[in-house]
This record gives sequence, structure tokens and C-alpha cells, in this order.
Amino acid sequence: MAFDATPARDLPLSDTALDQLFTSARTRNAWSDRPVSEALIRRLYDLTKFGPTAVNNTPARFVFVTSPETKARLIPLMGEGNRAKTLQAPVNVIIGMDLDFPETLPRLFPHAPGAKDWFADAAGRRDSAFRNSSLQGGYFMIAARALGLDVGPMSGFDPEGVKAEFFAGTAVEPNFIVNLGYGTDENLFPRSPRLGFDEAAQIL
Amino acid sequence: MAFDATPARDLPLSDTALDQLFTSARTRNAWSDRPVSEALIRRLYDLTKFGPTAVNNTPARFVFVTSPETKARLIPLMGEGNRAKTLQAPVNVIIGMDLDFPETLPRLFPHAPGAKDWFADAAGRRDSAFRNSSLQGGYFMIAARALGLDVGPMSGFDPEGVKAEFFAGTAVEPNFIVNLGYGTDENLFPRSPRLGFDEAAQIL
Repeated sequence: MAFDATPARDLPLSDTALDQLFTSARTRNAWSDRPVSEALIRRLYDLTKFGPTAVNNTPARFVFVTSPETKARLIPLMGEGNRAKTLQAPVNVIIGMDLDFPETLPRLFPHAPGAKDWFADAAGRRDSAFRNSSLQGGYFMIAARALGLDVGPMSGFDPEGVKAEFFAGTAVEPNFIVNLGYGTDENLFPRSPRLGFDEAAQIL
Repeated sequence: MAFDATPARDLPLSDTALDQLFTSARTRNAWSDRPVSEALIRRLYDLTKFGPTAVNNTPARFVFVTSPETKARLIPLMGEGNRAKTLQAPVNVIIGMDLDFPETLPRLFPHAPGAKDWFADAAGRRDSAFRNSSLQGGYFMIAARALGLDVGPMSGFDPEGVKAEFFAGTAVEPNFIVNLGYGTDENLFPRSPRLGFDEAAQIL
């Protein structure tokens, strides 16, 4: 790209960085025993939190499962095919969505004091929590890769069981679960095909 | 970080790159007239498509609205507060979700020939399309920033109208819409607060 005096944010990241985030990154099914520190978990949250959400509602809630005691509560709720890798990963992250997110809006979206009332309809509130917590899940996984970590997202678990075990008495519902750590190449599938541009997109 | 012979993918990106993706990036409400080329749109798709989805189902579908004729079909379907900026942005991206994604699984997830049948239940199929197309929307926005672009996501539009105008006769439903281009600081809100780690997360 020719020098054109645009600020740095108008420039693409290096191919090495794009590889790390997208092109060469892989969902991991096996994990080294290299630990993930609490400081790194907090740094990961501090990147994730800045991703855009509707009226800044940031409905995602994160339970970082790290101790053997907590893993023992989670593993039986995972689908059978997900248990061994979930046990092996140094961290399992339950990403939930808080259906009570409107209560946070007076603080999170202060320039529209009525924003809380825009979600009075239960179905619309759930849709927004689902969409935006999923977006945040996407930010979370790319942020993890940006910090040099690997991820392994899973939908195969007992959602009612996870709700009862980890979110009882709250308006939080589980969305999906991510294994987090430093992956190995064990049990790595060959990269599956992707849809071509013209199958998934159009320019009109 | 001390040199420890780990491969490059185990290292964090630079603070400058993390700023560009997350920390300093902002949802833009006004746009310069700098165009976005078709080559850049295709490069953006080619990063986005590699983000992880359940059984590689990649249900997101992308309509890149670039021509005045197509913008004229979209603008009246946007919420009033979103019309001026949607008109100004060089590209508007309608991100849809294809409820017929199971039809693609024999090709996209070839090592599990029965995967298509895991989504026979309509509610489960819709949940997976919604969750995974939203994840892909998250990948898309971070990939755009990684390429030096800015984004402005919006949920304020007439979903039935967008369905009828852009996805008639298909199983695709609109999820959300993203303005894409090179933003300006005009109409930029001050950065809104985020939840602290202990409000949104716990380590157990």
C-alpha cells in the first residue's frame, strides 16, 4: 500500500496478525498443560468489553471455570463427546446472557435515559440478549487469539443443567461454552471447507 | 515477555494492534467519502469465513449494499435515527441468517455425514442460526477493523421489510445491519462506561 498519510487505524494489520486471528487459527480439541493466569483472564475481559453492542447493553456474563471443584460441577453437564477436552483445557468459559440487562442501561447508556424501557417486551429483550451476547462471544474468541490463546467453542451441553448449577436465582441463561488455553494439534480435524464468496455474499 | 521458544501464535499482538481492534476502536456514526473496493470486501469475507461456528455451519449471509439504487431500497426500511448515517456510509452490510443451513452441512462438515439431521427441530435450527450468524457478525466487525476499516452496527430497522426486500423466496432472515467504511469523529458519543470485571465475570 502506498503511503497516503492516513492515521494508523486506517491500515491493515500484518498478514502474520491476520493469520493468528483468522486464517491459520483453529478450533482446538486438545490442550497443553500451560496455565492461563488470572491476569491474562482479566486482560481478555478488558479487551472483550469494548466490542460494540446495541445501546452498549453488553449482556454477556462470563464464568471462568478453573478449579478442579468447579470443573467437577461442569463436566457431567457437557455432552459426552465434549467431556474429555473440557476436562483437559485449563479454563472453561461459560458465556451467559443476562435477561435483566435493561437494569444496567441507565449507567451503560447514560445519554438516553429512557433506553431501559425500549426492552419492555420479553421476546425483544431475549432476542437482544441472545444477539449481543453472541456478538460478545465472537469478540471474546478473537480477543483470546489476539492475546496468543486458543479457543474451542461448544454448544453440546445441558442448558437447563448449566442454568441450575451456575445461574440459579438470576436472570442469566447460558449461551455457549468455550475451552480456553494453549491448544495442541491432537485430535485436530483437517480444516473443513468454507462457502465461497458468491455462495454466502452478494454486492448490490 | 521473555523469549520462551513458543510458536508465534502463542504471543500477544502489539498494543497498537489491540487498540485498533478493541481498545481504541469506536462505533462510527459519520463517514468519510473514501470508498471501499470490491477487492477489500472480498478480503474481508475471506477472513470472516474462518471464524469458528457450530459444526462449521456458517449460517451468516452478507448483502453488501453499495449502489445508489440499492441504498434507495434500504434507507426507508431503517429506523429514522439510522437513515442519514446509513446513506452516508460507503457500504451497508445486511447480515442475514440462513435457516436452510443444514443443507450445506454434507459439504461443510464432511466428517459427520449425519450432521444435517441434528437440526431437524425448527426451534433448535433457528437458535443455532441466530447464535452462529451473530458470532460471525462479531468476527466480521473485528476483521473489518483488522483491515483498517470502521464499523457501525445497527438493530434499528424494519426486519419484515428487509426480509421482503432482500431475502424474499429464501430461508434467510435479517439479523443486523452494519455500516462499513472509514469513519469520521462527527457525531461520536463519548465512550460509554463498561461493566467492571467483577460485575460481568467470575473465576470459579
